[in-house]
Amino acid sequence: MHHYRIHEPRDSLFSWSSGFDRYEGFINWGGLILLLGGFRLFLENVIKYGVRINPVSWLLWVKHEHETDYYYHTPLFLLAANIHILFAFYLEHLLAKDKIRGNFEVYIHTAHLAIILLIPVFILGIWTHMFSLLGRTVICVVYTVMFLKLWSYAQVNHWCRSERSWRKKLSRRRSFTFRKAQEKENAEMHSEKSDEAASLCLIQYPDNLTLSDLYYFFAAPTLCYELNFPRSQRIRKRFLLRRMLEVIVISNILMAMFQQWIIPSVKNSFQAFSDLDFMRCAERLLKLAIPNHILWLSWFYLCFHSFLNTLAELLYFADRNFYQDWWNAQNVGTFWRLWNLPVHKWAVRHVFVPMIKIKYSKLSASVAVFVLSAILHEYLVSIPLHMYKIGVFLGMMVQIPLGYISTKVESKFGPRWGNMIVWSSLILGQPLGIMVYYHDYMVKTLDPTMLDL
Amino acid sequence: MHHYRIHEPRDSLFSWSSGFDRYEGFINWGGLILLLGGFRLFLENVIKYGVRINPVSWLLWVKHEHETDYYYHTPLFLLAANIHILFAFYLEHLLAKDKIRGNFEVYIHTAHLAIILLIPVFILGIWTHMFSLLGRTVICVVYTVMFLKLWSYAQVNHWCRSERSWRKKLSRRRSFTFRKAQEKENAEMHSEKSDEAASLCLIQYPDNLTLSDLYYFFAAPTLCYELNFPRSQRIRKRFLLRRMLEVIVISNILMAMFQQWIIPSVKNSFQAFSDLDFMRCAERLLKLAIPNHILWLSWFYLCFHSFLNTLAELLYFADRNFYQDWWNAQNVGTFWRLWNLPVHKWAVRHVFVPMIKIKYSKLSASVAVFVLSAILHEYLVSIPLHMYKIGVFLGMMVQIPLGYISTKVESKFGPRWGNMIVWSSLILGQPLGIMVYYHDYMVKTLDPTMLDL
Repeated sequence: MHHYRIHEPRDSLFSWSSGFDRYEGFINWGGLILLLGGFRLFLENVIKYGVRINPVSWLLWVKHEHETDYYYHTPLFLLAANIHILFAFYLEHLLAKDKIRGNFEVYIHTAHLAIILLIPVFILGIWTHMFSLLGRTVICVVYTVMFLKLWSYAQVNHWCRSERSWRKKLSRRRSFTFRKAQEKENAEMHSEKSDEAASLCLIQYPDNLTLSDLYYFFAAPTLCYELNFPRSQRIRKRFLLRRMLEVIVISNILMAMFQQWIIPSVKNSFQAFSDLDFMRCAERLLKLAIPNHILWLSWFYLCFHSFLNTLAELLYFADRNFYQDWWNAQNVGTFWRLWNLPVHKWAVRHVFVPMIKIKYSKLSASVAVFVLSAILHEYLVSIPLHMYKIGVFLGMMVQIPLGYISTKVESKFGPRWGNMIVWSSLILGQPLGIMVYYHDYMVKTLDPTMLDL
Repeated sequence: MHHYRIHEPRDSLFSWSSGFDRYEGFINWGGLILLLGGFRLFLENVIKYGVRINPVSWLLWVKHEHETDYYYHTPLFLLAANIHILFAFYLEHLLAKDKIRGNFEVYIHTAHLAIILLIPVFILGIWTHMFSLLGRTVICVVYTVMFLKLWSYAQVNHWCRSERSWRKKLSRRRSFTFRKAQEKENAEMHSEKSDEAASLCLIQYPDNLTLSDLYYFFAAPTLCYELNFPRSQRIRKRFLLRRMLEVIVISNILMAMFQQWIIPSVKNSFQAFSDLDFMRCAERLLKLAIPNHILWLSWFYLCFHSFLNTLAELLYFADRNFYQDWWNAQNVGTFWRLWNLPVHKWAVRHVFVPMIKIKYSKLSASVAVFVLSAILHEYLVSIPLHMYKIGVFLGMMVQIPLGYISTKVESKFGPRWGNMIVWSSLILGQPLGIMVYYHDYMVKTLDPTMLDL
């Protein structure tokens, strides 16, 4: 009879007592739902708005931007950047020959760097209408990058000089030491020399102070100056071709997504934000959040992988560590440390570590880095848009308590929830900022009667 | 100088050469996007349609269904089901006493089972308007379950009788064997007896032929008859309470989702399907697919976990194996084997294995199971809706080539892609069927001039 028995005492899988925990099929389910949902939104968008992708309108926009740029002010402004580069170069030459002494070095560097940041503020602030929006943005980005690079250039050369003078003092002091010690020192010097022999081809200070070296640093995809950058042996043609193709394709996809997806969403959000209708605001925010986030992800890949790798490949620059795995970041602090390594490395090397060395606490050094980052972010938004709000600054400063909260969550509920907070702040923070800025920009630049539309 | 060096030759993580493969953060990303996207759709729905959830309208609908059900036809029809149960019971009594012999047993069983399935076809087909839609559905479900259970009851009792007569023959033959063999047999008998002593409380055929046993089988959450079902020791009150609460809460959620989400989507799809506008049809299909799928998932949990466990707990029925982990199924065939175990077990025990035993091939036995399943699915849709199409039948039959394709995909591209096909067919197959049926139902029952709306 036993072979007809098919029932036996068993628990259902969803009951806790079954101990069953294999739900990996639901990961595929999630991916599929995401794909189908995305495809449906795409269809809905095309049915509602038709095809709005139009490369010609981009060209027309760039042409219009050119025409509002009287007398080619933007290219001239960018050319003027060379003055600062040449001035910094001249300054380093004087310093190398010890023609400037004492604290004057610090004053002149600080003044020069401040001028670099302030020139766009004044010129673009006073003669705003003489530059196009595109032009103003490019100017601010170029001047900010120059500010960071020249800061690094000045500081590294300063370190080299300190070391040089320290070595001189050391060798002078050596003559007073007794014999045995000198012999030991000699042995050390010997091993040091063999080290030097190995690195014979490495450039030593002040041989690095050439114009070609400085311009290479300006072109290279890094913000941290070094006398001897690691160099690659050859240009990998297939790699370069693929990265360049990515730059072209992804930038076109970005423009298409912007025209087809972002502009209608932002426009549609205008009324809801003017009325401050909470539910519609939330709906609009979420409607914008996903395309904006996908745009940001694509932009990240375009900038940090495709573009910087293209540049590095062309310049034989071997360090491609432009980003780390921020997508696995388990708290907000880790995210900021991993997502933008050029800026992060610069901040650690030129702000955080020097502050620690002069006995500031880790917390105050971190806060200083964040405040500087917040100021520069604000700078890159306020000056081009000619809107002096503190939205971006506050958005950056919020990251400090958010980092604290996410670390708490991580240690209390596990790394998964910390990661969730990182993603949430990324997905929801940006579109909120964009809509607030867009709303205020429209209110400022458009006729007030348009509001009643 | 070496402590100022921060660059070293490294690949970017996205480059193949980096060998980096830790992207688990994107799983959290997917979950979050899904959650936010779902929440936005919820907001959009509420803004567009307002709150449509209304428990009173369900009560009104049930009341209306009752009123269209003249003279309580449905309860009477359901009461009549007892006639078949009593007839089956009487038949087994006659068979146990060997009052029916030879092939007549097979004929009478087949005739009885056919009548059970055909009675609703004729009565509901001829006097359709005397029963409500709800009543017709309940009748078809109850009669189908009865059909399956009585089939199992008849077959298991038949197996018991075969075994009984085989044992009788065996014991008669034993008297002719020589002594040594008989001693050996005795030893075997002895061990068999101790087995029997252990299972002393087990009911043997024909002691199982009581009305209470038969009605317990009808109430129990299984389609496979057994003389001794595994029983639980006690009713776990907390478990029972939780399952009952789930039944109430989830069924209300289901009704709410149906009113708020499915009805507007299906109604909106009507015009697109009438026009056969392909892009809008696809958009509508996807718009319906996700809520329908979530409804199906909730329904699955409600039926197979909450409801069947409630029933089993109340009846001290210990085998809770109502479903397996179909969500990890790597091909369509596996999905069908795992998702509905009561029916699957019935099909294997009462169709597949008996066919294999009389030398049919595995393939033809599988196809027979599928065809029977397809017929019963079609039965449960066509009879209540009074629409004799073969849509559901074809939908089920498509599973055979789909199973073949998904097995090919699984072996060629890996289990993940097989699982994807299973989910896709689940997510997309159902709403297509629903829309086609809804469209035809509307065309059939409504005024043809309404089509131009």
